[in-house]
Amino acid sequence: MKVLVFAASLRKASLNRKLAALTASLLERDPSLQIDHADYRDFEMPLYDGDLEESSGLPSGSREFISRIQQAGAIVISTPEYNGSIPGTLKNALDWASRAKPNPLDKKPVLLLGASPGALGAIRGLWHTRVPLEALGAFVYPQMHGLSKAHEAFDDAGQLRDSKDAEQLMKLLQTFVQFANATNSTGK
Amino acid sequence: MKVLVFAASLRKASLNRKLAALTASLLERDPSLQIDHADYRDFEMPLYDGDLEESSGLPSGSREFISRIQQAGAIVISTPEYNGSIPGTLKNALDWASRAKPNPLDKKPVLLLGASPGALGAIRGLWHTRVPLEALGAFVYPQMHGLSKAHEAFDDAGQLRDSKDAEQLMKLLQTFVQFANATNSTGK
Amino acid sequence: MKVLVFAASLRKASLNRKLAALTASLLERDPSLQIDHADYRDFEMPLYDGDLEESSGLPSGSREFISRIQQAGAIVISTPEYNGSIPGTLKNALDWASRAKPNPLDKKPVLLLGASPGALGAIRGLWHTRVPLEALGAFVYPQMHGLSKAHEAFDDAGQLRDSKDAEQLMKLLQTFVQFANATNSTGK
Amino acid sequence: MKVLVFAASLRKASLNRKLAALTASLLERDPSLQIDHADYRDFEMPLYDGDLEESSGLPSGSREFISRIQQAGAIVISTPEYNGSIPGTLKNALDWASRAKPNPLDKKPVLLLGASPGALGAIRGLWHTRVPLEALGAFVYPQMHGLSKAHEAFDDAGQLRDSKDAEQLMKLLQTFVQFANATNSTGK
Repeated sequence: MKVLVFAASLRKASLNRKLAALTASLLERDPSLQIDHADYRDFEMPLYDGDLEESSGLPSGSREFISRIQQAGAIVISTPEYNGSIPGTLKNALDWASRAKPNPLDKKPVLLLGASPGALGAIRGLWHTRVPLEALGAFVYPQMHGLSKAHEAFDDAGQLRDSKDAEQLMKLLQTFVQFANATNSTGK
Repeated sequence: MKVLVFAASLRKASLNRKLAALTASLLERDPSLQIDHADYRDFEMPLYDGDLEESSGLPSGSREFISRIQQAGAIVISTPEYNGSIPGTLKNALDWASRAKPNPLDKKPVLLLGASPGALGAIRGLWHTRVPLEALGAFVYPQMHGLSKAHEAFDDAGQLRDSKDAEQLMKLLQTFVQFANATNSTGK
Repeated sequence: MKVLVFAASLRKASLNRKLAALTASLLERDPSLQIDHADYRDFEMPLYDGDLEESSGLPSGSREFISRIQQAGAIVISTPEYNGSIPGTLKNALDWASRAKPNPLDKKPVLLLGASPGALGAIRGLWHTRVPLEALGAFVYPQMHGLSKAHEAFDDAGQLRDSKDAEQLMKLLQTFVQFANATNSTGK
Repeated sequence: MKVLVFAASLRKASLNRKLAALTASLLERDPSLQIDHADYRDFEMPLYDGDLEESSGLPSGSREFISRIQQAGAIVISTPEYNGSIPGTLKNALDWASRAKPNPLDKKPVLLLGASPGALGAIRGLWHTRVPLEALGAFVYPQMHGLSKAHEAFDDAGQLRDSKDAEQLMKLLQTFVQFANATNSTGK
């Protein structure tokens, strides 16, 4: 199974990029998986505009995003929380993706992670990030992982300092991969 | 697989009871399924009270609810929307159930249906009903079915008058059963 | 202005009872306010049942709840979070209250507080508690106060040990009272 | 009081543009109000990028949006629903606006409207649009107006064909203006 992993942040020093990179490296330990660790900048696209869509079709960054989703058997997104909810950039990417036919997110297993310097670990935002994904038919894994105080959480090698956090993340990734394999087995 | 089906309404003439009854009869056509069509009154229980729990443990209606969840491989709930959200009665049943160890809803496939006399078909409420179920680890199917104008939707035999509605429901039940079988195959 | 203050928990040693008691005492410092510090047990009522409503009307605990809401110019609720959302008991009380005519919560200013022993301070649940209140037309104050690690937060006199927490709460109460006075001035 | 009115859609033939235009004209009947009927294209801005913000500050479309919010005593937004939630474009505008100091949305009265060709009138999306606005401290009016089957709702003069719909909207605008005047009277 191919797993698409990306951080929904354009900022280079983003804590979510660190969490996505760690996640990709943890998943790579499983020889049955191929990891597509994407750079969010590969998916740069304009703000959704129905007139632009009508005149020019889906923009290239959006087509790239859709193609990478289609090729993946599962998706892991590490996303910041902006103002208690999903970042506009991520919602915009989903809005464009929802215009493809067939809908690439239908029945796609998705795991949500979030890193934040605060005490809440982006967890409020993750709950609102579920909504459009589930509206599009994605199988969003119920458990999520919000990494709080993320600016202090990583060592220089990009590993989590707290071994309990690291174990929780590893366990979550393993159970999510089982879930993704099972749901993919049903055909679509 | 055993499927627990119930309407989250105590009212005898509830439209959700009709939708649950129809759903149970549709699922019974599949010989691989055993249908546990429960009466919500079997699960009568007091309002959650931590002192009561400490002195007397879980009340009998709650223990019955938990036991029926444990025995089921999948759950279908037809629920009204009260004030834009989950009915207090259903949330109360989930709050008591969440006190059992191990948590009976963890990794349990759940499908949400809703009937309403209005134009929105209880769909706003269903989105808020997902939240505590997913917080408890349930695999809530992303697609849901809100039956609008439900007071006019059923014929005297309890079937849906609109054949398109009936087909949509049948199709949703079939894809949910596939999903439930797949996710149950992973072990827990 | 009369302010109704209560904790949405039946448990005697509830951390939310402590937070409600502290809140009531802080509000009492303002001579322009009359504080109705209610015991949630005054509002005991059965689970919502449309048949019961039809045969017997609103139960007495519900009528008491509605009456106390009607007499108040503002409401402060300190509520736990159960399973990431509103407690079933509180939702049930709102469901019964919504059956009164006229709707007692319409245009009523409400402030939500929450205490929790965890790190998140019940804040996820507070966001879902807003929904039925706003669906009923209440003016739910946007800022809320989630008291995290609440089991360590109070001293023996029921005051907050952390002076920063105490100041934040005091400031929030003051701005909420201004908001409530202003919105009540418009007539209804 | 100045009221900022805009549709959160870039599409020229957007049903939400029609609803915003009608709303602006209805509000103009009140001589105590000045209506700033904005074109969403005035607020064009890139996707939020923390690195861009650090190197270049807030983009000009965002500064324009913030300035128009600051000058307004109240805001009316007519917004489509994309995938059951807030459009990415609107969330992106809010994400940039939230970076201004002081936060221009704090204590700002906001009314949400939505037009949709479907039966649900964008109402699910409006509930999720409340969240970031309330997280930013805005006083989002509890009642909202979802215009269903909006492609058939307007006559050639841009008025609503259904007089009941028209009255509901007019009444909502009037009560919102009262609310906005009252909350603005408290000072900030």
